[in-house]
Amino acid sequence: MKAQIISIGDELLIGQTINTNASFIGEQVTNSQVHVAKVSVVGDEEEEILAEFALALASHDLVLVTGGLGPTHDDITKAAVCKFYNCGLVNNAEVLADVQARFQRLGRPVTKVNEEQALVPEVATVIRNIKGTAPGYWIEKDGKVMVVMPGVPFEMKAMVINFIVPRLLEMTKNAATFTRKTTLLTTGIPESTLFEKLGDMDTLLQGAKMAFLPSPMGVKLRITVTDKDHESAGARLTEIEQKIRSIAGRYIYGKNEEDLAEVVGRLLHERGLCMAAAESCTGGHIANRLTNFSGSSEYFERGVVCYSNASKVELLNVDEDTLSEFGAVSAEVAKQMADGIRAISGSDYGLSITGILGPTGGSAEKPIGTVFIGLSDASVTRAIKIQLGDDRMLNKERASQAALAMLRRAILGIPLDA
Amino acid sequence: MKAQIISIGDELLIGQTINTNASFIGEQVTNSQVHVAKVSVVGDEEEEILAEFALALASHDLVLVTGGLGPTHDDITKAAVCKFYNCGLVNNAEVLADVQARFQRLGRPVTKVNEEQALVPEVATVIRNIKGTAPGYWIEKDGKVMVVMPGVPFEMKAMVINFIVPRLLEMTKNAATFTRKTTLLTTGIPESTLFEKLGDMDTLLQGAKMAFLPSPMGVKLRITVTDKDHESAGARLTEIEQKIRSIAGRYIYGKNEEDLAEVVGRLLHERGLCMAAAESCTGGHIANRLTNFSGSSEYFERGVVCYSNASKVELLNVDEDTLSEFGAVSAEVAKQMADGIRAISGSDYGLSITGILGPTGGSAEKPIGTVFIGLSDASVTRAIKIQLGDDRMLNKERASQAALAMLRRAILGIPLDA
Repeated sequence: MKAQIISIGDELLIGQTINTNASFIGEQVTNSQVHVAKVSVVGDEEEEILAEFALALASHDLVLVTGGLGPTHDDITKAAVCKFYNCGLVNNAEVLADVQARFQRLGRPVTKVNEEQALVPEVATVIRNIKGTAPGYWIEKDGKVMVVMPGVPFEMKAMVINFIVPRLLEMTKNAATFTRKTTLLTTGIPESTLFEKLGDMDTLLQGAKMAFLPSPMGVKLRITVTDKDHESAGARLTEIEQKIRSIAGRYIYGKNEEDLAEVVGRLLHERGLCMAAAESCTGGHIANRLTNFSGSSEYFERGVVCYSNASKVELLNVDEDTLSEFGAVSAEVAKQMADGIRAISGSDYGLSITGILGPTGGSAEKPIGTVFIGLSDASVTRAIKIQLGDDRMLNKERASQAALAMLRRAILGIPLDA
Repeated sequence: MKAQIISIGDELLIGQTINTNASFIGEQVTNSQVHVAKVSVVGDEEEEILAEFALALASHDLVLVTGGLGPTHDDITKAAVCKFYNCGLVNNAEVLADVQARFQRLGRPVTKVNEEQALVPEVATVIRNIKGTAPGYWIEKDGKVMVVMPGVPFEMKAMVINFIVPRLLEMTKNAATFTRKTTLLTTGIPESTLFEKLGDMDTLLQGAKMAFLPSPMGVKLRITVTDKDHESAGARLTEIEQKIRSIAGRYIYGKNEEDLAEVVGRLLHERGLCMAAAESCTGGHIANRLTNFSGSSEYFERGVVCYSNASKVELLNVDEDTLSEFGAVSAEVAKQMADGIRAISGSDYGLSITGILGPTGGSAEKPIGTVFIGLSDASVTRAIKIQLGDDRMLNKERASQAALAMLRRAILGIPLDA
């Protein structure tokens, strides 16, 4: 089964919006054993949309369309679908009830443009929108399928996960081969070092494929295996994963879409431990990541964002003399911050971070990118220094990743310098 | 002049890499007065690449291609270009000298695959690569232009900025029309309400174009005007912007790429004021956003992430009786948190937030999505309640946006209930 993804919207053509929808759909559809052969973007122009629909359906079995289903004048996808399939609109009672229920829940009156969301192309089976008002359409004609979804990412995602993926898996379940992927997430090791450590690729992979994907959070290893069925592909994946873990396991913190903050949270939760964080330069980035996961209140006791020196002294009992002798960006202050946050919160771990993320504020002795991470537990207080670059946003991500990696190693008893 | 962007690479089709290259090129080329009519992505397959080249050149004046120019076996774009234009490769002395100089600087020997970068399609003018080894190509034939660049983002970006944009501006400088855009950023008003408030679009726009771009942070209004030159297009943009501001100005917090946190920071900075934040449910999201901007230490004094009740009492002096009487998620606690963080930090504003972001933890009285925002200044302490949905990550973004919007209104003296 061969698919094309079409995104509709001028904002994608002029670079105002990055096309994350196409990536999400590409991944989900690939995992449903469908080959994505093409992605395209066209603007909010009926003629261009109709031409792209025709082109896509001519050489693909499945066409997935997003965008232009909203309630305002620039949303023209619904009209284009009707024109393309030469059909009219019918009122869908289920969609109307969904829209009315949604507005009732929000305590707002239903406007006319919202009610019009219930008018759907005759030719379509409706895909309910559990996150918004515009329904999606599933259209089968002449042995081909067109799926049309809103462009709002979380509305589209819910439709893909709850409706599209199950349908596609049902359609592809009798195919002759099955492809599976696993991505191992590493941090703290450069791409080239990891590559050399893993040795000869052919010996390691035995016909499977592997891609190295470097990012500010670390290097991802994507392994892809095609075999006769789900089980045999899975067995080969497991075998390769185990070989890699035996060589570089200490750098692997998770799999697939996991966040290191989620992994750290799980490790704490499993052990009945809790932590608190004192952040200067990362400004709440670590606390924010940890609290992205439901249940985090069980292991994340509190955080402080101690941007000013006064807040370091008042909230964390950092010594004023230490601040003036070594400066706020120092191993000594990082250690006192870690001890301070652990003591005031009564947590098992106190994690701290202080540094200069740029683009200004560096000196010859402490250039931009200088960061100290402190970690305090009942037995020891440590601090490490890392040197980052000059991009503030990348530095925030890298610094918070390094701090969480340090905590993960401490929880697991892996030496910090290994 | 009408353009298409083509990105080549399997990783873009399967969703492993997000196509940021197309956004960057789209923005730069649009600003060079070229109309980007289409973006497409094809895999590392010669047949697919050749078909897409033919299709793109048939209906566009300019085709910009990225990806597949590297030195390894899966980089097949150069061969595809030769096949498409039916030409051979010639050795380019300038590229060879660039490659040799680069490796000399790195202290590494030049390998055979690197030397082969100097072999370029006969039909191409070389675009030098100042950030890497693979040169780009500028190919003019039959009145159409094809530009081919590497897929590595920073190599491509240097070529676009230094070579492509100046050439395009030269080519478009005598065009009969000039297009300009402005995006107004709103928050606190739903898309459909805003649409109805703005009234008849034709009256408002007088031939200009406007797009409604909804997101969790609010609705963006992108206005596009085409007129005879830069000045007249600018004058019409300003006129439309003023009309919109006269109707919905209180919801507009910024323009183009601004973050509301940046806007709030600037307002504080201009007035010599500072703030501190006490976050429960947003877990540091507000502090993290505020500290994304260089110079934020001047107006952001500190933050606390008071996830536990103990931390609310100990750090912010929230009254234990208030906590047990009204619960942590209440207007009363939000107010005490705001007063507490303002008092301990000595800031002009204390901003607080407490709520239930889900996906668990709701009750009949306080369902998931219930959030209270508190704001304290020298004269008054207020709290507002907002009702969000059940998606934790979206709720974090929406709650932090609402809190910053409340602070912005307070700084500007706009009534909170307007």
